[in-house]
Amino acid sequence: MKTKPVGRLVVCGVGLIGGSFALALKAAGLVREVVGVGRSQASLERALALGVIDRAAADWAQALAGAEVVLLAMPVGQTEAVVKAMAPHLAPGTLVTDAGSTKRNVIEAFYLHLGGHLAHAVPGHPIAGAEKSGCEAADATLFRGRKVVLTPLPENEPGSVLRVAQLWQACGAIIREMSPQEHDRVFAAVSHLPHVLAYALVHDLAERANAEQLFEYAAGGFRDFTRIAASHPEMWRDICLVNRQAILAELDQYLSELAFIRALLLSANGPGLEEVFAKARAARMAWGERYVNDANGGGSDE
Amino acid sequence: MKTKPVGRLVVCGVGLIGGSFALALKAAGLVREVVGVGRSQASLERALALGVIDRAAADWAQALAGAEVVLLAMPVGQTEAVVKAMAPHLAPGTLVTDAGSTKRNVIEAFYLHLGGHLAHAVPGHPIAGAEKSGCEAADATLFRGRKVVLTPLPENEPGSVLRVAQLWQACGAIIREMSPQEHDRVFAAVSHLPHVLAYALVHDLAERANAEQLFEYAAGGFRDFTRIAASHPEMWRDICLVNRQAILAELDQYLSELAFIRALLLSANGPGLEEVFAKARAARMAWGERYVNDANGGGSDE
Repeated sequence: MKTKPVGRLVVCGVGLIGGSFALALKAAGLVREVVGVGRSQASLERALALGVIDRAAADWAQALAGAEVVLLAMPVGQTEAVVKAMAPHLAPGTLVTDAGSTKRNVIEAFYLHLGGHLAHAVPGHPIAGAEKSGCEAADATLFRGRKVVLTPLPENEPGSVLRVAQLWQACGAIIREMSPQEHDRVFAAVSHLPHVLAYALVHDLAERANAEQLFEYAAGGFRDFTRIAASHPEMWRDICLVNRQAILAELDQYLSELAFIRALLLSANGPGLEEVFAKARAARMAWGERYVNDANGGGSDE
Repeated sequence: MKTKPVGRLVVCGVGLIGGSFALALKAAGLVREVVGVGRSQASLERALALGVIDRAAADWAQALAGAEVVLLAMPVGQTEAVVKAMAPHLAPGTLVTDAGSTKRNVIEAFYLHLGGHLAHAVPGHPIAGAEKSGCEAADATLFRGRKVVLTPLPENEPGSVLRVAQLWQACGAIIREMSPQEHDRVFAAVSHLPHVLAYALVHDLAERANAEQLFEYAAGGFRDFTRIAASHPEMWRDICLVNRQAILAELDQYLSELAFIRALLLSANGPGLEEVFAKARAARMAWGERYVNDANGGGSDE
């Protein structure tokens, strides 16, 4: 069943995610007008020039006039300020959703500032992205086959949740639902912590006196392990701040794992090390076969 | 200056590295006969069938008769036993080299068992590999543009070091020299530790009650961060055991870095986190531009 087109879509934060959502709905013939709003006038002008948005709004009053759907897609640290600023201008029927990598803080902002609007404020998180950021990298096909996690509120009207789900499905995405607490714990483990660990390794090496020498001999294993250390610092600062309790819990769990491996190394426990490595390898290979078109396979190249 | 062909090359451990060395020298017209030796008869037969080796030797006496060059390319944990076993059958002029990812243990084995042969026993480490292992994955082009680190002994005859260097150069490799201590410290930092960290993360998640759920939401950042967790457990067990002191030192350094980041998270220190992330990103991007044809770029996709 095809969902009906959005008359006016407002995208706050026209970067990779917001821009791709706009382009995907345009490609599907499911949006008549896209209005961009954001803190950077320059990036709104680029989005306009690229046809990602049809119009840039000067303020929330202008942006929200006649808006049917609003997607919040700026770094998660801005959520509360943005929700607070938009709230007074929101018409009763406008559907609000977001694309933040963390959910508890988004929900807190909704409860704080959208108290009368909770029927139509549906938190979401598309598990998609690319190496690039900014609206120049926006791509109508970005969400094809990717998961979008919705964490609906008890107050949400079922029709609003369905509408958000259908719009993402029209972008090619697969919908999952979770509680916000569960969402934030799961992504702390499989996404936020790995980012922190990769940043930590590169930072550690880069600050050494012999950093030049170390980097000269780093090869393909290092390349892949640290690829996410080139991620956007502000975005990841925000994720770390808003989800810091779950990330700390995951970090502490990981430190226990490292303490265990450290003991195996200290005691030169070959069978113990091989068992850990073999279990990890089996789990990684099973994951690769099941969840990704893992063209590059797994394994070392050093 | 083209180096002269090797009359008879012996490869111990005909896997990805040993097999690729044989194929590369064959492709360059620089070897007349390749003799394989190893603990697995089945893998020697596959290497024979694939034309990676010309003959499989039943024992070291047979393998070393008339051998001009020997490459040791089995997992590093076998080095001492292999060197001990070959020593009695080694003719005075035969050149011995190796491809181990660690060097101090190889040198210890040379000093222990090749006391009269040190002029011609040259330790080396090709920084190359691929996702696959085994002689089926052997590839004549594997070493093109890759570094090979030699860690010559004071006892080495300059002509022997030059000969080893020229053979690797004929495979397309770039030669570097380092002390074995420096080699083992550098690779503990940029290769061995990242492997341990990736194994640790996957092992940690795989052992949880909700492992299925966690893996379901893992995406591209996790894929690349953990690719090396699919590496060969025996090979990495051996590397961890023989280089455990350097790896422990690197692990402890990394644990200090994580303690620092943990403190930033605990205190919700946004500027501090952003500074670490921004420094890491700058270093990772500079590395990507300088050292790799980093087609995939860096950055997050979550």
